[in-house]
Amino acid sequence: MSFWNSIFRPTSTAEIAQKYKLRKIPHQDSSIFLGTSKDIDPYELEELCDAVGWARRPVRKVRIALLNSFVVITLWQCQGNFRKLIGFARATSDHAFNATIWDVVIHPKFQGKGLGKTLMQELIKELRRADISNISLFADGHVVTFYEQMGFVADPEGIKGMFWYPPS
Amino acid sequence: MSFWNSIFRPTSTAEIAQKYKLRKIPHQDSSIFLGTSKDIDPYELEELCDAVGWARRPVRKVRIALLNSFVVITLWQCQGNFRKLIGFARATSDHAFNATIWDVVIHPKFQGKGLGKTLMQELIKELRRADISNISLFADGHVVTFYEQMGFVADPEGIKGMFWYPPS
Repeated sequence: MSFWNSIFRPTSTAEIAQKYKLRKIPHQDSSIFLGTSKDIDPYELEELCDAVGWARRPVRKVRIALLNSFVVITLWQCQGNFRKLIGFARATSDHAFNATIWDVVIHPKFQGKGLGKTLMQELIKELRRADISNISLFADGHVVTFYEQMGFVADPEGIKGMFWYPPS
Repeated sequence: MSFWNSIFRPTSTAEIAQKYKLRKIPHQDSSIFLGTSKDIDPYELEELCDAVGWARRPVRKVRIALLNSFVVITLWQCQGNFRKLIGFARATSDHAFNATIWDVVIHPKFQGKGLGKTLMQELIKELRRADISNISLFADGHVVTFYEQMGFVADPEGIKGMFWYPPS
C-alpha cells in the first residue's frame, strides 16, 4: 500500500472495535458493538440520557459515578472511523454479595430491536462471572414487565424497595 | 503512677473509644459508642448477624464487602478494656449520586432502645455529607414501618424494587 493510500484509507469498523476493545453481539444490525470499559466520555453519556429525556447531571459527578461503578456496559454503533454511544447500563456493588443496576438506557432510535435485552443479559453475565448472587434494581412502573421477562421479580417475599426523602 | 500500677491499670472505656476512634452517641446507655471504620473483624460481624438469625456468609467475602462498602456504621458496647459489636449497617454507592443500604442489624439484647434509629440517622448523615442525594434500601415487610418513620417511602412514584432470580 502506498504512503498516501495508508494515510487516507478510512479507519475500518474492525479497527475502531479493536481500539476500544468492543466486541460483536449476536444481533441483526452488524454495526452494533458492546463495550465494558468505564473510560467513556461523560458528555457522550449525558447526551444519550438527554435523548431519553432524563435530567442533566453534573459531568464531574458522572465521571466519579462511572469510576465507582462495579460494572459498566455500553452499546455502540460503529461506522467507518466513527462510533456513537447508543446504549448504557451500570451497576454498583460491594464486589462480593450484592449489585444494584442503575441508568439502563437505549437511544430512542435503537429501541424496539432487542438491544435492551442484550444490554441486560450482558450486565447480568458480568455480575454472575464476578460471583455476585444478589442482583437488584429499581424499576419505573412502565418497565417492570420488561425486567420480569429478564428474570427479575418485583417485591419478592414481600421485600419493598424504599427511597429516602429529606424532611420537609 | 508506679510502673506496676501503669501496667495493671485496666484500660478505660475512654481509651478504648480513642483507640478505635469511637464516639459517644446521645443515648441513655452511656456505654454505647459509634464507629465509622471499615476495619472491623468479619468474624465479629458474622457473630452479630448470627445472633439475629441471618445465614452465615464466607468470611473472605464479608471482608471484601466491607472494603467495598462506601459507608460502614457500627455500634459498640464498651466496658473497661472490652468492646462488643452490637449494631451494624453499611451502604454501597457510586460515590456521586446513589447509595443503597444493606445489612442493618442490632443485637437482640439491644433492640427496642432506639439504637436502630440512631444507626440509620448516622448512616443517612454520612451519605448526605458525601453529597449523595439518592438513598435507597430493600426492606423486609416487617420493617417497612420502621423505615417509613426514618423518612423512607416504599415504591415512590410506582418505582418497584426487583431482584433477579437465575432461570430454573
